[in-house]
Amino acid sequence: MAVEAPPPMTKAMVSFYDKISKQHLTALWSVFSELITPEPTSVVKSHLWRYDDIREHLMEAGDLITAKEAERRVLILENPGLPGQSRVSNSLYAGVQLVKAGEIAPSHRHSQSALRFVLEGGGAYTAVDGERVYMQPGDFVITAPWRWHEHRNDTDEPIIWLDGLDIPIVQLFDCSFAEGWDDDEYPTSRPAGDTQARFGSGLLPVDYDRKPKHSPLLSYPYERTRSALADLSKNAAWDPCHGLKLKFVNPTDGGYAMATIGTFMQLLPKGFKTNRYRSTDATVFTVVEGCGRTTIGETSFTWGPRDIFVAPSWRWITHQASEDAVLFSYSDRPIQESAGLFREQRESA
Amino acid sequence: MAVEAPPPMTKAMVSFYDKISKQHLTALWSVFSELITPEPTSVVKSHLWRYDDIREHLMEAGDLITAKEAERRVLILENPGLPGQSRVSNSLYAGVQLVKAGEIAPSHRHSQSALRFVLEGGGAYTAVDGERVYMQPGDFVITAPWRWHEHRNDTDEPIIWLDGLDIPIVQLFDCSFAEGWDDDEYPTSRPAGDTQARFGSGLLPVDYDRKPKHSPLLSYPYERTRSALADLSKNAAWDPCHGLKLKFVNPTDGGYAMATIGTFMQLLPKGFKTNRYRSTDATVFTVVEGCGRTTIGETSFTWGPRDIFVAPSWRWITHQASEDAVLFSYSDRPIQESAGLFREQRESA
Amino acid sequence: MAVEAPPPMTKAMVSFYDKISKQHLTALWSVFSELITPEPTSVVKSHLWRYDDIREHLMEAGDLITAKEAERRVLILENPGLPGQSRVSNSLYAGVQLVKAGEIAPSHRHSQSALRFVLEGGGAYTAVDGERVYMQPGDFVITAPWRWHEHRNDTDEPIIWLDGLDIPIVQLFDCSFAEGWDDDEYPTSRPAGDTQARFGSGLLPVDYDRKPKHSPLLSYPYERTRSALADLSKNAAWDPCHGLKLKFVNPTDGGYAMATIGTFMQLLPKGFKTNRYRSTDATVFTVVEGCGRTTIGETSFTWGPRDIFVAPSWRWITHQASEDAVLFSYSDRPIQESAGLFREQRESA
Amino acid sequence: MAVEAPPPMTKAMVSFYDKISKQHLTALWSVFSELITPEPTSVVKSHLWRYDDIREHLMEAGDLITAKEAERRVLILENPGLPGQSRVSNSLYAGVQLVKAGEIAPSHRHSQSALRFVLEGGGAYTAVDGERVYMQPGDFVITAPWRWHEHRNDTDEPIIWLDGLDIPIVQLFDCSFAEGWDDDEYPTSRPAGDTQARFGSGLLPVDYDRKPKHSPLLSYPYERTRSALADLSKNAAWDPCHGLKLKFVNPTDGGYAMATIGTFMQLLPKGFKTNRYRSTDATVFTVVEGCGRTTIGETSFTWGPRDIFVAPSWRWITHQASEDAVLFSYSDRPIQESAGLFREQRESA
Repeated sequence: MAVEAPPPMTKAMVSFYDKISKQHLTALWSVFSELITPEPTSVVKSHLWRYDDIREHLMEAGDLITAKEAERRVLILENPGLPGQSRVSNSLYAGVQLVKAGEIAPSHRHSQSALRFVLEGGGAYTAVDGERVYMQPGDFVITAPWRWHEHRNDTDEPIIWLDGLDIPIVQLFDCSFAEGWDDDEYPTSRPAGDTQARFGSGLLPVDYDRKPKHSPLLSYPYERTRSALADLSKNAAWDPCHGLKLKFVNPTDGGYAMATIGTFMQLLPKGFKTNRYRSTDATVFTVVEGCGRTTIGETSFTWGPRDIFVAPSWRWITHQASEDAVLFSYSDRPIQESAGLFREQRESA
Repeated sequence: MAVEAPPPMTKAMVSFYDKISKQHLTALWSVFSELITPEPTSVVKSHLWRYDDIREHLMEAGDLITAKEAERRVLILENPGLPGQSRVSNSLYAGVQLVKAGEIAPSHRHSQSALRFVLEGGGAYTAVDGERVYMQPGDFVITAPWRWHEHRNDTDEPIIWLDGLDIPIVQLFDCSFAEGWDDDEYPTSRPAGDTQARFGSGLLPVDYDRKPKHSPLLSYPYERTRSALADLSKNAAWDPCHGLKLKFVNPTDGGYAMATIGTFMQLLPKGFKTNRYRSTDATVFTVVEGCGRTTIGETSFTWGPRDIFVAPSWRWITHQASEDAVLFSYSDRPIQESAGLFREQRESA
Repeated sequence: MAVEAPPPMTKAMVSFYDKISKQHLTALWSVFSELITPEPTSVVKSHLWRYDDIREHLMEAGDLITAKEAERRVLILENPGLPGQSRVSNSLYAGVQLVKAGEIAPSHRHSQSALRFVLEGGGAYTAVDGERVYMQPGDFVITAPWRWHEHRNDTDEPIIWLDGLDIPIVQLFDCSFAEGWDDDEYPTSRPAGDTQARFGSGLLPVDYDRKPKHSPLLSYPYERTRSALADLSKNAAWDPCHGLKLKFVNPTDGGYAMATIGTFMQLLPKGFKTNRYRSTDATVFTVVEGCGRTTIGETSFTWGPRDIFVAPSWRWITHQASEDAVLFSYSDRPIQESAGLFREQRESA
Repeated sequence: MAVEAPPPMTKAMVSFYDKISKQHLTALWSVFSELITPEPTSVVKSHLWRYDDIREHLMEAGDLITAKEAERRVLILENPGLPGQSRVSNSLYAGVQLVKAGEIAPSHRHSQSALRFVLEGGGAYTAVDGERVYMQPGDFVITAPWRWHEHRNDTDEPIIWLDGLDIPIVQLFDCSFAEGWDDDEYPTSRPAGDTQARFGSGLLPVDYDRKPKHSPLLSYPYERTRSALADLSKNAAWDPCHGLKLKFVNPTDGGYAMATIGTFMQLLPKGFKTNRYRSTDATVFTVVEGCGRTTIGETSFTWGPRDIFVAPSWRWITHQASEDAVLFSYSDRPIQESAGLFREQRESA
């Protein structure tokens, strides 16, 4: 066995531990089995949040506080295994944000990376470094680190989206930086659509040869994503564990769209039941279309549109779709892969 | 001065040269100034082929020989400075191909890379490894090395395109391989559109991490390219030498779409006149839309839709558009860049 | 200011917080200023451990427990700001290991990456996947993830080294895997020196084109490192903040030698006093040669050979050498850089 | 069959060819079988130059012309299949250079890349951008493109080396640039050994993250190379086609040491006879140590120290060593690989 149980405690040992602790020293053998475990032993729990519940509370929050007062009016999805830690998994943050008709969430920037995945409403925009990105349900929108961003809803309906951030990762590395914009609104710098045309059309500026760690794209519109899923489903080359699963990529290097957070879209056709798999990247899922059921370890959840659930690291997972279903998901897989830590195990039967 | 003139010939020298030549030896100092020149000194000439002329001859060829008999019914654009060499520049090949209504050009594969740029007609297809790519004017279609490809025109109009290949490069490296397909038609392997959906939609298959030297995309449709140019022209950040110039890229690594041939699309708004520039990559241009005039060294050409012209290495170039113009072009820039040989010089006034 | 203070608590707010917490929801605005701070606000403290103190305790440990019983006989350097967490900084682990004459620390493997930096003794070896690496003071030895490794001291002197691991990073990502080797000793697979010859001599096997995330080298011997420092010191191009500072690299890609941990060697000539700098990567230093003094924030330490000290993220640092000094150091900089999080600020005066 | 024979010539065809040739057009079908061949069909011939013969002529050249008059006193090895073209193979140049005691070959720079492989003599130096590199037999020295370089022999013996350049490649791309240095000697910029210490010791400057297309190293000394071969021969994992074959690499990216030219060193133990292989990269070999025999296609050569021979593309090759032998070789493999053109075929029996 990999990790020996700690050797039996003698009186001499106790007195030794005591003495060295004053010098800020600890005996490795007394803690080895907690530090280096044979398999991941997370306290993170599987959990599903019903969209209706979140929405109800979010609307109440809309009456309690303005977007401006709150800076961001968000309810954090807090993992039941990590109470008080503002984390949905060990390494990731999830929240659901409401911007009411006519509101503006003021411009700021920070070293944390953020994704938005639009759940409800449409036509509001995020402006990133002064370029507006209009949002529709199913769109995946990126705010790369240290870029000014504000949200504004000039429509007459609320807009609600899922926020995913790498806050716990930035905490571990003690790298948090943030700034607010003093003025009311950050100035417009480029016409809407400029970045999409420049980087998202199969071409790049002729002299461009940077490979930024984050996709230069501000948005991956659902229209294009959904159309790709539909075209690929004709080929019907279903992965037994994932159905048809794609990752969003940075068009300047073919890597993940974000350096710390992997983002995925998958299609499970009606009646499809996946084989079991487990992987080291705890994952947050949200339902874009359809209904189904997911089993994570010993727990099962049925889900419908806009529900959100989290699967911890290294638990066995199966999905089952009762109608054609599309799931968006995110995890820390890019950073695990670049560290050589990512593992996945699939069952073939 | 960089390169000394050869030292004066003495009688002893002549007799020495003679003696060593029998041993397959040559005195470097007698040829140094030809091998290593202070600047590129190409015999390649600037030239423009009018589309109407090419088309007329191509149609005549259509009566003389079938696509099947010809294997490919193509007229090679041969540089006037390199007669009999089947080259449009020192390192590149250009031809114009006709596939008449009802014809098929049989399947073969070769180590040479090919691009097609559609000039006239629409609805015919190229099948690459058994996946059909339907073609429309302005589309840029790739046949990567060693992939089976055939062309078929089931419409009732002829289709005509520009072919660009790296034949002289493959000749230099003695790397030509080719094979014909015995049967009439290569079998269909995937539905049309599959590759576009898989690689051209901002996503990649979840486990994909290859970085192929050639774009996995089979086609860059003009519809998307033209729309990107239109969106970017709103920003009006014109480059003084190139107007708005983009390169086609491989979505898996952000590099050129082809390993040996760079492909570009540029917009010159009506009335725009570029500053002079010169670069080491001899370039073949074709006109997608609009009219204008280009000066290359001492020579000037006026051009209109579908005309084709070539600019040699290191000649000063200016473009001038008399109406909004779109130019497609290709050169050996990728291989020059990876060899560290590419240079460009721009004039600022 | 970037991060608003939380809005004032009303009774309605309190009751709302209470209600949503039952649903595993938290109001972002109540915790925003803790999660996203304007600058790093670490509880990690600067600290120096005297080698003599560590050594004394380690020798006592050598009498209390065998290497085999302990699995690894190591005293963990525990940051005074993180008691009970077995961390030297937020993201890194440091320990000092003793293998006595005649001892063997049995073979195991784990997903955590480890470095050894030899402080005292010589001639013992680490065997990695069955290849022995003999160790001398100043050598930097790598155990990449999931490779079998054991330590054996067949000399008649103890050997002591500094261990650096990425345990807290692997904890965050819930990726710990470990296994023990059942038999007494892992079999020898290759002659000692094979890997060094294959990858550390300016050449690679002709068909090698992998770019592993970790250096294939098992060791960077001090002899070569010291000789490089000596040669470069003739050029005397001293960096005002770092003296002469080099990073150990992976010869297959020129990146860091380890994916998660950056390792560095720097020379400070006698009398040199650096300008202030601060960076986001908390760093563990150990002294290879010489004496000096380092100021970190408000705290100063004088140091001599084999002392070990830690500098937290984003504190101002100056070094001063009272005789020619060589420092080895390690930090989480590679993972910060690949995440786009690393920042450094230097003072020029 | 891949490539159809040209269709039979009719009178109408002849008249058509004639007409279009005036417009600089050629019918592809009349030349297809020459342009795109089923296999490489090179006119390049295998050839071996005895060192004694070369040396004799070179010494005579030493009496006929000074190094300064000649700019470089070199005898070009001209492939018997390419008379008058100053090429050793289609894409590469080879020459043998003599610098007599007391001579200097003046500083110049050019866009062509050069390698030197020292055959005889020692202690002379090449200065590259003002840093001296002292040369010994077996050393592989690089002059990257556009770097000032001069050669100087302050010893009292002649020095002779093999020069390899990419002149024909630069010709194909019309990219030749060159400049001479006006003054007598280029100024010294750095102490000898600086670059070796900075880039060739397993470390890089801490802020270095460029990946230059050419190795920053100026020299790969034979002492280190020979020692790596000796260490690896203990493992005796002989490749059946290549014995023990390594490539020289760029320590900043693990790629080839030069962008256009691959350089290799291989050990064939006494009595070893390789299996047949063929590859698309025509290769120049020189013998560093030992004796043996090589068969290329139908031709066989016996060789001893410092002999030089060339193998054309895609001919079957076997090597046989009558005593322990070390071969240095170079080819255009890097550029073939980056273009996706390289192929190798090995026989297993």
